[in-house]
Amino acid sequence: MSSALFRALFAPRGVALYGASGDATKNTARPQRFLRKHGYTGTIAPINRTRREVLGERAYASLAEAPGDIDHAFIMVPPADVPAACDECFARRVPVVTIFTDGFGETGAAGRKIEERLVAGGRAAGTRLIGPNSIGLISTAPATALSVNASLELERLPLGPLGVVSQSGSLIGALLSRGAARGIGFSRLVSVGNEADLSVGELMDLLVDDAQTKAILLFLESLRDAGRIMRAARRAFDAGKPVIAYKLGLSSAGEALARSHTGALAGDDRAADAFFAACGILRVRNFEALIETAQLAIGQRPPRGRRVAALTTTGGGAAVVADPLGAAGAELVPPPPALAERIRALGVRVSDSPLIDLTLAGTRANVYGPVLEALLASAHCDAVLAAVGSSAQFHPQLAIEPILQARRRHAGKALAVFLAPEAPASLHLLAQAGIAAFRTPESCAQALAAFLSWRAPRTEVAPALSSFDIPQAPSQRLRSPDEPITIPFPVAIKIDSPDIEHKTEVGGVELGLRDAREAAMAAKRMLERVRAARPQARVDGVLAATMQQGLGEAILGYRVDPQVGPLILVGAGGTLAELYRDFALRLAPVTLEEAREMVAEVRGFAPLRGYRNAPLGDLEALARAVAEFSRLATRPEIAEAEINPLLVKKAGEGVVGVDALHVLRQGARDHGPAA
Amino acid sequence: MSSALFRALFAPRGVALYGASGDATKNTARPQRFLRKHGYTGTIAPINRTRREVLGERAYASLAEAPGDIDHAFIMVPPADVPAACDECFARRVPVVTIFTDGFGETGAAGRKIEERLVAGGRAAGTRLIGPNSIGLISTAPATALSVNASLELERLPLGPLGVVSQSGSLIGALLSRGAARGIGFSRLVSVGNEADLSVGELMDLLVDDAQTKAILLFLESLRDAGRIMRAARRAFDAGKPVIAYKLGLSSAGEALARSHTGALAGDDRAADAFFAACGILRVRNFEALIETAQLAIGQRPPRGRRVAALTTTGGGAAVVADPLGAAGAELVPPPPALAERIRALGVRVSDSPLIDLTLAGTRANVYGPVLEALLASAHCDAVLAAVGSSAQFHPQLAIEPILQARRRHAGKALAVFLAPEAPASLHLLAQAGIAAFRTPESCAQALAAFLSWRAPRTEVAPALSSFDIPQAPSQRLRSPDEPITIPFPVAIKIDSPDIEHKTEVGGVELGLRDAREAAMAAKRMLERVRAARPQARVDGVLAATMQQGLGEAILGYRVDPQVGPLILVGAGGTLAELYRDFALRLAPVTLEEAREMVAEVRGFAPLRGYRNAPLGDLEALARAVAEFSRLATRPEIAEAEINPLLVKKAGEGVVGVDALHVLRQGARDHGPAA
Repeated sequence: MSSALFRALFAPRGVALYGASGDATKNTARPQRFLRKHGYTGTIAPINRTRREVLGERAYASLAEAPGDIDHAFIMVPPADVPAACDECFARRVPVVTIFTDGFGETGAAGRKIEERLVAGGRAAGTRLIGPNSIGLISTAPATALSVNASLELERLPLGPLGVVSQSGSLIGALLSRGAARGIGFSRLVSVGNEADLSVGELMDLLVDDAQTKAILLFLESLRDAGRIMRAARRAFDAGKPVIAYKLGLSSAGEALARSHTGALAGDDRAADAFFAACGILRVRNFEALIETAQLAIGQRPPRGRRVAALTTTGGGAAVVADPLGAAGAELVPPPPALAERIRALGVRVSDSPLIDLTLAGTRANVYGPVLEALLASAHCDAVLAAVGSSAQFHPQLAIEPILQARRRHAGKALAVFLAPEAPASLHLLAQAGIAAFRTPESCAQALAAFLSWRAPRTEVAPALSSFDIPQAPSQRLRSPDEPITIPFPVAIKIDSPDIEHKTEVGGVELGLRDAREAAMAAKRMLERVRAARPQARVDGVLAATMQQGLGEAILGYRVDPQVGPLILVGAGGTLAELYRDFALRLAPVTLEEAREMVAEVRGFAPLRGYRNAPLGDLEALARAVAEFSRLATRPEIAEAEINPLLVKKAGEGVVGVDALHVLRQGARDHGPAA
Repeated sequence: MSSALFRALFAPRGVALYGASGDATKNTARPQRFLRKHGYTGTIAPINRTRREVLGERAYASLAEAPGDIDHAFIMVPPADVPAACDECFARRVPVVTIFTDGFGETGAAGRKIEERLVAGGRAAGTRLIGPNSIGLISTAPATALSVNASLELERLPLGPLGVVSQSGSLIGALLSRGAARGIGFSRLVSVGNEADLSVGELMDLLVDDAQTKAILLFLESLRDAGRIMRAARRAFDAGKPVIAYKLGLSSAGEALARSHTGALAGDDRAADAFFAACGILRVRNFEALIETAQLAIGQRPPRGRRVAALTTTGGGAAVVADPLGAAGAELVPPPPALAERIRALGVRVSDSPLIDLTLAGTRANVYGPVLEALLASAHCDAVLAAVGSSAQFHPQLAIEPILQARRRHAGKALAVFLAPEAPASLHLLAQAGIAAFRTPESCAQALAAFLSWRAPRTEVAPALSSFDIPQAPSQRLRSPDEPITIPFPVAIKIDSPDIEHKTEVGGVELGLRDAREAAMAAKRMLERVRAARPQARVDGVLAATMQQGLGEAILGYRVDPQVGPLILVGAGGTLAELYRDFALRLAPVTLEEAREMVAEVRGFAPLRGYRNAPLGDLEALARAVAEFSRLATRPEIAEAEINPLLVKKAGEGVVGVDALHVLRQGARDHGPAA
């Protein structure tokens, strides 16, 4: 089934074109022109009510009249005519229909309704849809250039190992154009449009099974079907095909003011980061790094560390990569003594610097190649950066040959080549050999950093964590101020009202009440104050809790993100998590090991780690609480939950939650000191 | 004088070459080859003890024998022979000597000594030096390609308005090569090497006076003569020549553990940021943005706001720029209603989005051009981003002509053009017209962000600030624990010892002592504890200070940076400034207005600004304290000073310093509650 779908998408025996123009200068004439230009050998059937011939091809008044096996229809007619065209395709049980026409789901509810009807019709007929609002798709071998994208004016489709799935139509053209100019080739490129039917994840799945695709590139605007993407990413990983993603959203500033802090915090781009990491997807933020990083990762597995060895013939040319690379968390490592000795024996000055600067001597082939080979073969680094100076511009063959040779002998380690000058011929030679080559230092640093952060997709976390409850401060609900308090003193009290969000503002919190008398008086005053300030609010009484002392505060958050699903957050306490975005975020649930990593990522816990000789906090208990809290992911009725603050006591003394909140998925709400 | 120097550097009548090889394949043969290749018309005099001819040019055994006016000598002999060669030049009073040979100041003290002697000899003879360790310099018109840099193998020197001063030798080649490939040209490029004599600042000064240079580009590894750079940058600004800098140092992680926090905090790359901002220098962090940003800024003055209008024929192509641009703090603005109406009248769909997406309609010249003109002429934005899709690749003339026309009519606003596909011909057309064009979205965003942050150089701050002392908590020095305390209670005490850095660790701090008895007992216990813990430390007694209450804490720091000079820092209190690098930094002194900007930059003051309904703090008093503290810059004897914590009270109630420290420049040290 899926291989039939694959053929209909990328190697259809016949293609029907709805709305194909006979005027070669029109955009709607392009698919027909491009198909033929790039050597499509199947049937092309323009469907046209009035013309018998379109651009030299026999045209048909309806699909029913077109002869042969039509595996794929491409629809460019005005929105109002799309349903009728689809119906013809469904009637003939055409396996795939790609809808270029826009004005559907992306315009609102009415458009989404039409999409749904089209998808239902397709399902009944066994027809799958791409789009609407898809610019089309491109397959390089056999050539099927079924797209309106003007980039197909290029002379020859660049064949190669990269499969692209894109939520932006025009950018498949930008990738194709940039790849072609660099000697980097593609297997398939698909613009998914509105994803009414075929989604990013399903297309990824098809590319996993495609022998010509060695890496999968995603250009994303949002995550529409995260679960499917994750499953496909796992399969890709198991098949040895790296997945690289570029996603917009660095500055989708307009963050909704979610009710709980956790909601607000996790609602940003970092949820996507957590998702990609969990999927084993390499995320890049430089557009061109998308195609370049693929070449870095193909044939490799995730590295163990973040250590980079660097050699160069131009000190400055390596420094402009090393500087942002270091800032991105990679570690530049000098060769270990024995290796340094061997390199010295080649006449190279090896200093303490992690950059092995061969200077002009390095332009001799008998130096650059052997040093590069030695680094590729050495276990002291996880990747190698090779920078080349002017020789790459004027003597491409001479400059690049030692790199090609070294690569042939040692393929098992990631290698990134940066060319300091403008050196298109050298870029080409490297690309042809499948070696990642970069024309900007920032993209090179970005790709290396993404590669070094690459880890295997997370496996399903078994819920069999050791049983460990998160201790909560003793608490008691008082219906009236006179009710006797049975929990230990001193206590804090706060108003118990589902209608009051910020309790401090209305005088709804009091701390440090030492005995029953103080507490009763304070509760009475509080009820009066709050009733005066918010006469409309429902007030159920007062909540009392035993005061707690800790060395530091944390916030623990859980929420089900509409895009990526359950998320667990641990952040610095007070307002730090929010002010400094100082939190760690993962898909939930997490193992204890992952929870420890999360705790280690939070900068605000530095004092608890002994920063400036502060006493150590019980971060192990905190990690256990994180892992435990993340198990809320096994309770589908809970939409959000938060413990804030969670006090962290001295090492060995545990943690204790002071206030907790959870929100049920149905919207029912339940405040209280115990989660 | 300086114009004679300029001529000797860039248009010498005759050049002597020391160490020029007769073997054309040798690196040391290059300067002679390159000079002739690129059309140098003056005398070339190879100096060679043994040969009468070098590469077809008459050679001389010594400089004394060479005829004619030798304005410039280029020295490539081994290190040991450099002083003798220089002496010959000094004897003949050659105006400029450029030393390519390395192995001097960069190798240590002995090398620096030799450099100093060379500079002294030059000074006596009226000879200026470039280098040592300079790869040479290049002037395009008249052509003087006096360098070993292999980039000069290129066919023709690209003429243009960019002057480059670089601390990296090889990267002048990378810039030249990349510029040439893009159609971006240069006036002069200088590799300064060790700057033993002629420094970056002095060369900038020469370029300010050079009619062919319209923008000055700096590639920096460190700031060696910041005062001179600042003066030159001011002159450049006044002359309407933007200065753009790329500086390494994002990850010079190995930060020295400076004694006071301020030292540690300000010791990083942000001191350079503060310096560039004060100089009116645009700083970029993408290497290629160095040449691209120059084209954006030439002919412009610093903008008033950070508002960018964007139009595009490719939604995705604009989004990949807009996303990082927004993250860098720029504001994307939609057209105001009247302008939107005019754009609609051209048949363009204008939505609420700040991106004006012309879609395929935009490829018609009568749409793109008029919309661009309207944006360039409108006051609602400070810069315009114009993105172009596939048409830039296949129809450069058609795609670019409307941009050129619009630009000709409206030159007064910054314009950045991003080309989504690989489109070298379009890049060329735009570069030739002096329009900033970008081939990566990240570089485009970076350049626009740098432009939008560009402000005029700071003027000298007159020290006539209103007299405002920073209140300090009442304090008293106790020689013995029995000495009566005369300041108000409650008090805090701490050990008074010049030898104990972290007083808390040895039990040297106690808080909240309510009366004379408590204080005396605590002081006694403290002295015993400290003597036990640190028997070797000098202990002068105990310091007492009245306890203070504030809504929040700040840290105020001052230090004289060895590179950029006096710096003033205000940061969030406690450990926040250090943990989150949450501080604002400027060259000192600052005006009250600048101090207010600094306070506004510190995220940790959010609660004092009323975040989450917290009561407002006296941030105006904090700003006054910052301005006042920055006046330490007028006291050259003070090397560092710090008030930490400085408590910020309620609005209207001021600030009060609790602990202060200053370090004298001579190393003398003075701890105490008053600065």
